[in-house]
Amino acid sequence: MGERSRPDWARRVQATTRTIRDADVDALVVSNPQNVRYLSGFTGSTAWLVVSAGGARLLTDGRYSAFVRQQMAAGRQLTTALDVVELGYDKALGDVLASLTAKRVAFEAQTVTIAGLSRWQRLDAGIEWRPMDDIIEAQRLVKDAAEIESLREGGRRLAEVAAGLGRILAAGRTEIDVARAIDAAIERAGFERPAFETIVASGPNSAYPHARPTARPLASGDLVVLDFGGVLDGYCVDLTRMAAVGRIDSEARSLVAAVQEAQRAAIDAVRAGVTTASVDRAARSSLERRGLGAAFSHGTGHGLGLDVHEAPRISRAESGHVTTLGAGMVFTIEPGAYVEGVGGVRVEDDVLVTTDGCEVLTECSRELLVV
Amino acid sequence: MGERSRPDWARRVQATTRTIRDADVDALVVSNPQNVRYLSGFTGSTAWLVVSAGGARLLTDGRYSAFVRQQMAAGRQLTTALDVVELGYDKALGDVLASLTAKRVAFEAQTVTIAGLSRWQRLDAGIEWRPMDDIIEAQRLVKDAAEIESLREGGRRLAEVAAGLGRILAAGRTEIDVARAIDAAIERAGFERPAFETIVASGPNSAYPHARPTARPLASGDLVVLDFGGVLDGYCVDLTRMAAVGRIDSEARSLVAAVQEAQRAAIDAVRAGVTTASVDRAARSSLERRGLGAAFSHGTGHGLGLDVHEAPRISRAESGHVTTLGAGMVFTIEPGAYVEGVGGVRVEDDVLVTTDGCEVLTECSRELLVV
Repeated sequence: MGERSRPDWARRVQATTRTIRDADVDALVVSNPQNVRYLSGFTGSTAWLVVSAGGARLLTDGRYSAFVRQQMAAGRQLTTALDVVELGYDKALGDVLASLTAKRVAFEAQTVTIAGLSRWQRLDAGIEWRPMDDIIEAQRLVKDAAEIESLREGGRRLAEVAAGLGRILAAGRTEIDVARAIDAAIERAGFERPAFETIVASGPNSAYPHARPTARPLASGDLVVLDFGGVLDGYCVDLTRMAAVGRIDSEARSLVAAVQEAQRAAIDAVRAGVTTASVDRAARSSLERRGLGAAFSHGTGHGLGLDVHEAPRISRAESGHVTTLGAGMVFTIEPGAYVEGVGGVRVEDDVLVTTDGCEVLTECSRELLVV
Repeated sequence: MGERSRPDWARRVQATTRTIRDADVDALVVSNPQNVRYLSGFTGSTAWLVVSAGGARLLTDGRYSAFVRQQMAAGRQLTTALDVVELGYDKALGDVLASLTAKRVAFEAQTVTIAGLSRWQRLDAGIEWRPMDDIIEAQRLVKDAAEIESLREGGRRLAEVAAGLGRILAAGRTEIDVARAIDAAIERAGFERPAFETIVASGPNSAYPHARPTARPLASGDLVVLDFGGVLDGYCVDLTRMAAVGRIDSEARSLVAAVQEAQRAAIDAVRAGVTTASVDRAARSSLERRGLGAAFSHGTGHGLGLDVHEAPRISRAESGHVTTLGAGMVFTIEPGAYVEGVGGVRVEDDVLVTTDGCEVLTECSRELLVV
């Protein structure tokens, strides 16, 4: 956690407790690992949290229980009670629910599998299982003070990594070499790890939005997409900048200019009260005006937090995912245009919604880096 | 894939086709990403595969479709047909099932969530959805020739990384520094990435089986657990060795000897026809004879493949997971003993089951490395 504030887990659990009371259930089983972390600070690979009117009980096994006790003693994790799993998580869950006399039990419909629910249904025939969608995700949509602190600091550090790209890129270095050097810079900046597999896509490879780095050496005339992220305190930040190796042709230059303009238009459209679809529209209209509508083959952005892709989705109204922005939401703005034979361009920043606009968390030059 | 053989995807799909014919369903939707990769070679983040009597159809979106075509042309992926997802995966799946006139459709009960099935059920009321367990996992349990080639080469390279540990460890270096140096050695050995977060657990931290590296400097008298793995061609290998910083006391020395002996006993117990429980028993009895039964708080091993933890589980009969070993299964043998105040010890190798015993894939010295 470094010198940043500790999350207020108790307050988060209280909010969940209110939600489940309103939904008229006795308990909620949280099994999505990032949701467990959000409510308790637990960072191991396996734990479930049972939230009821009495608070949150953490179920974890012998691999983690001693560590959890130590973390709780140091104030780095929180749970009302710790239940050590001895004979399997299902059995331990059954025992906890019995001790709470919970009969109407909600669970995370997007996490629990068909096989998992079928095992739970055999625990106690008297329990009524209620699938619920996005209960904790809805809380996570608007970041609280500790989350904003982590994301802001992460954005600042990632912008520093971007500012150092000129020392990393050089004609003749392979995409893989450049990606490794970026990963090393991400670690040196104090991130726990890269937030995803760093993308270095040069020349023809830049036309693929999710290209993986290859052994291709950067060559004169290449456009290069550099898309990388870092995890700080568990929170993900994500940035894309463009480079050119030597002189690029005028078609490539105008592609870069078009995407920069679309990104600016989308950032300018962000403020509390507007919809995600209208932010997407701002970027898309800008590219359409340049005849690049079809070249923009993905959404404009995605939420950032404990997951590198979370709500809100910044995409067209037709996608069916429309959210009204509220202050405290954090997401990427990353329009792109991909033209076979010319290459691909994407420019990406992370923004925090404010009442009258947004704060760019990854502020640094968006100019084409010429190497 | 380097110079190793290409997987025989067509043969794998044929085996799946036979299974679904025997199960009397028209099609199987494969949505577990590792199972999709196993059957097609697809390595992107999102694709579904629909297997029917006619073969396998891959559904993926615009981020990957051009890449898939390129890979198929180069013989690095295989699918009978490619369906490009335009308006969401659910819609595309509905279209493919309609074109196949599939009415009894199996799915992976351990992958599909309650929310996911509920969306599928709205596609076509005439489809009968059948949850099935471990269909592809059962195929993956016994490795085929291409898989064994990758795992054998991975084991050989990981043993080389282990042989270089003496140059990495030194009193005064922190656990995090050592872990990073091991990760760098894993990359230099040609692995795609570490198979999991490298464990370097020194002194008191060694008592936690899943400790994360900390800023603690290695100190004289420490026992150090070094547990690391690599991914080659998508296949995971996993190794643990023990080090001591200077002189360790006699209690720690006998703990090391006890775990080495238990590991030897378990390796000696492996051969086709015996059960996973009997292999676990061999390690456990050995530790129990030394009074360390309670100190061995986890199972003896886990299967290795596209997942770093897969079937078979090498654990007690009471765990409910008992598998009879067959030639071609690959798993870890990693007993441990953890005593608060003394420290923890684990020794781990990867083995390939043969008809009359096993081949240790990670063969290298198991002696305590004294630095």
